[in-house]
Amino acid sequence: MEQLFQYKDLYHFVYHTFIKIGCSDQHASTASEVLLSADLRGVDSHGIARLSGYVRLWEAGRINSTPDIRIVHETPSTALVDGDRGLGLVVAPFAMKIAIAKAATTGTGWVAVRNSNHFGIAGYHAMMALEQDMTGIAMTNASALVAPTFSEEKMLGTNPIAVAIPAGTEPPFVADFATTTASNGKLEILQRKGTNMPLGWAQDSGGRPTQNPSILKEGGALLPLGSDREHSSHKGYALGSIVDIFTGVFSGASYGPWAPPFPAYIPLPENMPGAGLGHFLGAIRNDAFRPLEEHKAHMDNWIKRFRNARPVSGAQPVLIPGDPERESQARRIKEGIPLLAPVVSDLAALKAKLGIETSLF
Amino acid sequence: MEQLFQYKDLYHFVYHTFIKIGCSDQHASTASEVLLSADLRGVDSHGIARLSGYVRLWEAGRINSTPDIRIVHETPSTALVDGDRGLGLVVAPFAMKIAIAKAATTGTGWVAVRNSNHFGIAGYHAMMALEQDMTGIAMTNASALVAPTFSEEKMLGTNPIAVAIPAGTEPPFVADFATTTASNGKLEILQRKGTNMPLGWAQDSGGRPTQNPSILKEGGALLPLGSDREHSSHKGYALGSIVDIFTGVFSGASYGPWAPPFPAYIPLPENMPGAGLGHFLGAIRNDAFRPLEEHKAHMDNWIKRFRNARPVSGAQPVLIPGDPERESQARRIKEGIPLLAPVVSDLAALKAKLGIETSLF
Repeated sequence: MEQLFQYKDLYHFVYHTFIKIGCSDQHASTASEVLLSADLRGVDSHGIARLSGYVRLWEAGRINSTPDIRIVHETPSTALVDGDRGLGLVVAPFAMKIAIAKAATTGTGWVAVRNSNHFGIAGYHAMMALEQDMTGIAMTNASALVAPTFSEEKMLGTNPIAVAIPAGTEPPFVADFATTTASNGKLEILQRKGTNMPLGWAQDSGGRPTQNPSILKEGGALLPLGSDREHSSHKGYALGSIVDIFTGVFSGASYGPWAPPFPAYIPLPENMPGAGLGHFLGAIRNDAFRPLEEHKAHMDNWIKRFRNARPVSGAQPVLIPGDPERESQARRIKEGIPLLAPVVSDLAALKAKLGIETSLF
Repeated sequence: MEQLFQYKDLYHFVYHTFIKIGCSDQHASTASEVLLSADLRGVDSHGIARLSGYVRLWEAGRINSTPDIRIVHETPSTALVDGDRGLGLVVAPFAMKIAIAKAATTGTGWVAVRNSNHFGIAGYHAMMALEQDMTGIAMTNASALVAPTFSEEKMLGTNPIAVAIPAGTEPPFVADFATTTASNGKLEILQRKGTNMPLGWAQDSGGRPTQNPSILKEGGALLPLGSDREHSSHKGYALGSIVDIFTGVFSGASYGPWAPPFPAYIPLPENMPGAGLGHFLGAIRNDAFRPLEEHKAHMDNWIKRFRNARPVSGAQPVLIPGDPERESQARRIKEGIPLLAPVVSDLAALKAKLGIETSLF
């Protein structure tokens, strides 16, 4: 039950949606490009499927479509940015540009962001650095769905980390992953199929193992990368915590169980200790350590060697982080972006509500 | 079969061992403190149990006990350090001091290190930043024991990451973990016990699941954090790769399957693409983003909230990364450091070989 859409048609629709809620031309362009980069790269949970969710957050007054995004404090290699409740899709690229500019002058640049919202895929922001021959890093916190090791309570978001490292003739290394074993999106796929979930993805409301993919609606929680103590879930918990502290505590955003939820119908947590969601963005000049040509040649060598690692008999070849997403992007630019029927009807409702002129949906 | 030793007695022995192999007083002091911090913190695999291994590397000419550690290149926030084949136990603190000094002036400092050796526990180096009210980061690559997702071949080391973040009245947050599901040390414990290993820790030489804890001696490999594809081993693989690239490719050290092995009897890999092992060290001034007092108050709040997360019924309380190691250190300073019989006899042999004056062993 999928329908194919061309990137430029979806871009037109998304752009005009952001214009309708009051974004400037520049903000609407940036937000559309960031949001749809998820659909191109095959991260369907973070793309146009979330568009109506952003609009509902704007309707609820939680997103400011005309934010005054500003630097609150800075040092030669760091800055703190206040997103003024703007779209994370716009606030994060603003902050990443500052990180890149600081890296150009001091070797590295690091920007903590508060008072923001969901920023789409972390990979987009990290990849902004690639064009400048820099390594890019992006993290965000998110509303709590994950139980730390030994905890019954949800304390952390899926808190992704993205790292993009340019090479020479090889395509860049682009890792972009949630610090959990499975994403909520994977559970939703199993719910639609009506099948069981593997053990180790989530726990029930009492912290017990479960194979019920709807368990998050019944008080359950996602598990940190590692799944259980025996398989080092404390490492995934530590990793998600590092992201929460760098993005939330460093910046003055909210954090832990107080991170604001994406669905507008869920009330904001009480006694939030900070402002909105937090991000952390970094850029490292690739000639900050060794000469650029050496860096590139050895990244190429690294990538080739790992791509040629001897695969397990019968398994697919060993992948470099970023390979599947790059292949998805090439295919979807050519063949179109597939959208599921519920997403299409959601967008049709959005079109009617906002009065967007398009022949789509 | 454990015997208890006092920290100061072990320090005396380790210090004189390093003096015997030609280290300066200052290098021997630093190396002893770093090495024994592992024993204090309960990371027994990385402490005095490895002392004879360092000596064998020196005997094999792979460790230079009088290195000319130097800065090769720098920018305001970064430096590249060449360790001149010195002890990682000495080279990494040298580099971390540079990171801290750069952070003091530009907000953050980042140092890539090449031509080094095993640096003990990553946590020690990250924690050096705490005294300056800075966040510390430390990573190292290591010889290949880990198979990436879909790979039969060992391509990555256990590649640890440590992040130490100071708080106010609470003890600091100190995460220090290998990017694998289990460490080789855990497999060795099961070998001694003669029991099976949990599935998901390692694979056999054909990439198949195994419960044999001796499998690494039979061509097997450790698995990245996540264990298998279904539980997101590709994320652990990405994480270990990021460490390998930041420590090895950024610096000009060797990397991937070419990282030099710790046991001196294993020949160096052919066609090594760089010099020795690599490290990556970072320091972030905690007032680089928001005022220090705010940072401390919110770190305290973060730590208290997570420590009070509702535990799973019957489970222990939720821990903050660094809690078990801090408790170990307090206990072992008071009660002594337990060493297993094989470690004691190994140290006795070392004492005889080097002629170290001590009543121990």
